[in-house]
Amino acid sequence: MGLARKSAIILSLLAFSLAGAAPAMCVQATEEAAKPLSPDDVLFVVNNIWMLVATFLVFMMHLGFATLEAGLTQAKNTVNILFKNTSIVAIGVLTYAFMGFNLMYPGSGYAGGFFGFSGFGIGTDVAGLTSAYNVGYTYWTDFLFQAMFAATSATIVSGAVAERVKLSSFLIFSAIYVATVYPIVGMWQWGGGWLNKLGFHDFAGSTIVHSVGGWAALSGVIVLGPRLGKYVNGNIRPIMGHNLPLACIGVFLLWFGWYGFNGGSVLSAAPGPVSLVFTTTTLGAASGLVAAMITTWIVHKKPDFSMVLNGALAGLVGITAGADAVTPMSSVLIGAIAGVLVVFSVMTIDKLHLDDPVGAISVHLVCGVWGTLAVGIFSPDYRFLPQLTGVMAAAAFCFSSSFLLFFVIKRLLGLRVNAHEELRGLDIGEHGMEAYSGFQVFVTQ
Amino acid sequence: MGLARKSAIILSLLAFSLAGAAPAMCVQATEEAAKPLSPDDVLFVVNNIWMLVATFLVFMMHLGFATLEAGLTQAKNTVNILFKNTSIVAIGVLTYAFMGFNLMYPGSGYAGGFFGFSGFGIGTDVAGLTSAYNVGYTYWTDFLFQAMFAATSATIVSGAVAERVKLSSFLIFSAIYVATVYPIVGMWQWGGGWLNKLGFHDFAGSTIVHSVGGWAALSGVIVLGPRLGKYVNGNIRPIMGHNLPLACIGVFLLWFGWYGFNGGSVLSAAPGPVSLVFTTTTLGAASGLVAAMITTWIVHKKPDFSMVLNGALAGLVGITAGADAVTPMSSVLIGAIAGVLVVFSVMTIDKLHLDDPVGAISVHLVCGVWGTLAVGIFSPDYRFLPQLTGVMAAAAFCFSSSFLLFFVIKRLLGLRVNAHEELRGLDIGEHGMEAYSGFQVFVTQ
Amino acid sequence: MGLARKSAIILSLLAFSLAGAAPAMCVQATEEAAKPLSPDDVLFVVNNIWMLVATFLVFMMHLGFATLEAGLTQAKNTVNILFKNTSIVAIGVLTYAFMGFNLMYPGSGYAGGFFGFSGFGIGTDVAGLTSAYNVGYTYWTDFLFQAMFAATSATIVSGAVAERVKLSSFLIFSAIYVATVYPIVGMWQWGGGWLNKLGFHDFAGSTIVHSVGGWAALSGVIVLGPRLGKYVNGNIRPIMGHNLPLACIGVFLLWFGWYGFNGGSVLSAAPGPVSLVFTTTTLGAASGLVAAMITTWIVHKKPDFSMVLNGALAGLVGITAGADAVTPMSSVLIGAIAGVLVVFSVMTIDKLHLDDPVGAISVHLVCGVWGTLAVGIFSPDYRFLPQLTGVMAAAAFCFSSSFLLFFVIKRLLGLRVNAHEELRGLDIGEHGMEAYSGFQVFVTQ
Repeated sequence: MGLARKSAIILSLLAFSLAGAAPAMCVQATEEAAKPLSPDDVLFVVNNIWMLVATFLVFMMHLGFATLEAGLTQAKNTVNILFKNTSIVAIGVLTYAFMGFNLMYPGSGYAGGFFGFSGFGIGTDVAGLTSAYNVGYTYWTDFLFQAMFAATSATIVSGAVAERVKLSSFLIFSAIYVATVYPIVGMWQWGGGWLNKLGFHDFAGSTIVHSVGGWAALSGVIVLGPRLGKYVNGNIRPIMGHNLPLACIGVFLLWFGWYGFNGGSVLSAAPGPVSLVFTTTTLGAASGLVAAMITTWIVHKKPDFSMVLNGALAGLVGITAGADAVTPMSSVLIGAIAGVLVVFSVMTIDKLHLDDPVGAISVHLVCGVWGTLAVGIFSPDYRFLPQLTGVMAAAAFCFSSSFLLFFVIKRLLGLRVNAHEELRGLDIGEHGMEAYSGFQVFVTQ
Repeated sequence: MGLARKSAIILSLLAFSLAGAAPAMCVQATEEAAKPLSPDDVLFVVNNIWMLVATFLVFMMHLGFATLEAGLTQAKNTVNILFKNTSIVAIGVLTYAFMGFNLMYPGSGYAGGFFGFSGFGIGTDVAGLTSAYNVGYTYWTDFLFQAMFAATSATIVSGAVAERVKLSSFLIFSAIYVATVYPIVGMWQWGGGWLNKLGFHDFAGSTIVHSVGGWAALSGVIVLGPRLGKYVNGNIRPIMGHNLPLACIGVFLLWFGWYGFNGGSVLSAAPGPVSLVFTTTTLGAASGLVAAMITTWIVHKKPDFSMVLNGALAGLVGITAGADAVTPMSSVLIGAIAGVLVVFSVMTIDKLHLDDPVGAISVHLVCGVWGTLAVGIFSPDYRFLPQLTGVMAAAAFCFSSSFLLFFVIKRLLGLRVNAHEELRGLDIGEHGMEAYSGFQVFVTQ
Repeated sequence: MGLARKSAIILSLLAFSLAGAAPAMCVQATEEAAKPLSPDDVLFVVNNIWMLVATFLVFMMHLGFATLEAGLTQAKNTVNILFKNTSIVAIGVLTYAFMGFNLMYPGSGYAGGFFGFSGFGIGTDVAGLTSAYNVGYTYWTDFLFQAMFAATSATIVSGAVAERVKLSSFLIFSAIYVATVYPIVGMWQWGGGWLNKLGFHDFAGSTIVHSVGGWAALSGVIVLGPRLGKYVNGNIRPIMGHNLPLACIGVFLLWFGWYGFNGGSVLSAAPGPVSLVFTTTTLGAASGLVAAMITTWIVHKKPDFSMVLNGALAGLVGITAGADAVTPMSSVLIGAIAGVLVVFSVMTIDKLHLDDPVGAISVHLVCGVWGTLAVGIFSPDYRFLPQLTGVMAAAAFCFSSSFLLFFVIKRLLGLRVNAHEELRGLDIGEHGMEAYSGFQVFVTQ
């Protein structure tokens, strides 16, 4: 079965990889590969593969966001929502390659505590394909895993501004936000910046990812205003999601992807931390779901399915900051509190006439803040004050910068579709097509 | 790119993990890590990661069950079905942490052949994060992989009692069944109990998981009775599924997750067994599908798509007991017989006026029994009699306990929604919301 | 927690695997396992697991194809489309086991440059479960990974002939094509045949998989003719897809699965190549998407969502031939050109009155050819002429053989449903069931 051929290929690939040789030097490298493998060489292979597995899991979160947001909104805006979420992945990866990665990890040469930049474009040194870059994984794995994270922050915003935001303006906002604000805040902690030095702990990004998206969601909702017909004469009119199976698929995919989001944030396949993180993540999600179920059952008399879905996400966002630093029992508590919080937060935000169609602010901002502070409460290794400082710093920088950015785009390009388009649906208005051709769908709001 | 920082993190995490140190001892552990890694250390990392990959695959089976059940039933009950299936995952994981795991693996101190219990709650010993627990993987990985299995048995029941069961009563049944009956039967085999000592072989749970769910599905269907309008004047009226793409997604996700269900049941990444299990699993599913396709084409003249979907699942359930113990050629035969069986079983169960909306009894019980017996027929290493004994023991215990449980719940709380709610749909009745807001959906049954 | 039992199981499984013993020799093998593991033994475990991960990823591409095709066509043909795509996976795996694998990898004994065959059925030698087969992975892993690829080529055809092809005729075509044409072309390159010796490079199958499917799609479209009402009096009438969320899910799943398709084609877990391939694959997809978005925005004034989806796939198909052989920056260029190409190709093919409902010819054939030629342009290690030769050879063999096969089937069995069935929908005609029972769906074309 072509055994000899395959063996030769595999050997040369391994040699290429482990010996750090450039492709053109493959033959020579094969000879070098004659020196025996060490256990550390193999561990490097394992860590790198695990980080790539985590990468494809995080990739699937973007489908999760797309289907959740589409499912919880109206049928007439579905194409537009899918379009935004699909495009953001691509735009996020490309802008991250162009500049985000180099803003987030500026390296020792450039790094200041608040800002650093190591130049446009991604590296091409072949050493980036070997352990010369990192004992855990290659340069390219590092870039790709981080790139998948980056687009997440913009996707969070997408849900909050859905059903009325102008497509082109939103894409411009996302591209700029992902290319600049997200990596700068990321550098403060993960790039070795001032928060990191302060003793702030945010394992996989309750603050650095979720609240960064959440603050922009809040400023977007304020600048945009509510959907037409949502708040009439002081009354709150519910606008129902059009496809709850799609929303359910979304939450499962997000939970699924979170095993890569949190599991990959260990930055290696080290059994203890990865197992612990999988367990706290699962228990946080499960208890968030159950807590939200009980809360909605009591508050709304009948259990609201979208609250149960948001409860699972609340638990996940809540545990993300401390998934590596709290006990499994604490993760149950942290998740449960997040599950209760999200139900009341959704109700409160609606009472404030802040129109967030999918509850993104409650899930990602409120529970992101909760999860970050919870580390200071539940983990013996971290203090409360640095956690609070990190939360406040992200708040100040992200809210103000996103507010300014939305404001400028509103003035220059307009941020909102016109009333006729909004009523008819953005699918026809922005794309000239419908999501469910052939179905009888009612488009009146 | 923060190389030094990352390296330090990775080294300390590895040290923490491999040396079995508690988080607080990280600094000290880093020093210990100076002793060189052995190949066995690295193998532990690999096995543990594979088990976690299997865990997230099994997690996705729950979305598979949710979408399959929703797709094969009526639009007016969709929210309710998604609600049940989503909640069960969370309830299953939490009850398994609270007591199920300790019932299923009571340990040498407590284990009897039929019952054992090692106390409430899950362990907190940091040795559980290292190879001190197990040469294959950590304590937490063990718990989590098993926890994902546990909820499966309740999810199987869900499909059989769909479209008329009262939400609260079903959730109570599920919680109790997953917390007690499933782990007790599981202990008989996988916890080192009497079936295990008898020479019974059930690799990944044709009996221990699928028939455990299947027997409860059968008793639930009997206690509940059929849906209104299903059997009128001795005639069988078909009630069509409302969303076959959703059902198709469900079957693919189940097949996908089965690679973790069976592949992870090897309990290590050992190449020979995992490769064999992947192959028999795939061939079993494929031949189940093709056999069901041919059978339905002959029997129904036109090939019924839901039968083809059930054929794949039948093949998967059928091969689950012996995936590690039969040749690939035998797996084709086992799958094919399961595929034929499921078509006739669905017809027979319907003729008996047992109303199982999704065919759960045929897929999980009938083919679970078949798969278990098939091990005694096709594998040279196992005998037929212990296989039959295991099937009968599970039947007696699971059918009687689930029947009793359903019966008691029916008396105390009621098990079924009222006729008006059933006709209007459980989405409005139990949740006050619709799955497809804005669509023209006909709700007459 | 049954530690001793589990340890014993794991040890014996490992022994079985690593020492290459047959199941019946387990006890003896356990003793042999006393000799210490080498790093190479562990690397074999890692490589094998990675290939199995890649296998389940490629498996999910079939759900991607199913949902994409269903979403981009009409509601009345949905069951039929899901049926085809689901069946093809099973048929593909089984025919590949029966003969495809042995045609594609005929081994040194039989291999000629153009044709070879090593007999019916798959191997049963237990050495196939160990590294005796291959330094990278077991025989069964090799078979399964390749089998998942095989069905892909038929699935590509499915989309092009959708909404009018007769079910039985299509299944016969697929079974024969997957069993013979695909593996013969595959042997030319991956089985060590004449293209391989010529210096042709097609890393994961832009030509060997995608264009093989694409040429058959083209001949199918020609032999079948367009859907009724598509081209009337020289005008092109658009027939809209009925479920764009389903199409979006499809593209994300394909992209997800592509990490296994390309990542697994490295044939090991070697960090350098796998990281590079993940990166070029991601950048190719992202830039294909963005390029198609910009192109459709300019050409169609409003950005067409299905074009954006096809843009991502175009980028993926385009980068597949050279994912291991070009720089990340080149992958951005290759993807961008594919994204532009696909938009104009879809328009051109429609102008030629070739009715391809999902754009399969543009995505898989046009971009498959582009990607193959791009290797000769962007990689310093490969020349243009062998690339062109490979493209032409696949064209000649695949187009002619598929054309002949479609033609013969058309004469013997008929290839197309009758006009009444086509207008009413193939779901009722071929299967006697509807995909969306209970919904108001308009079936006029």
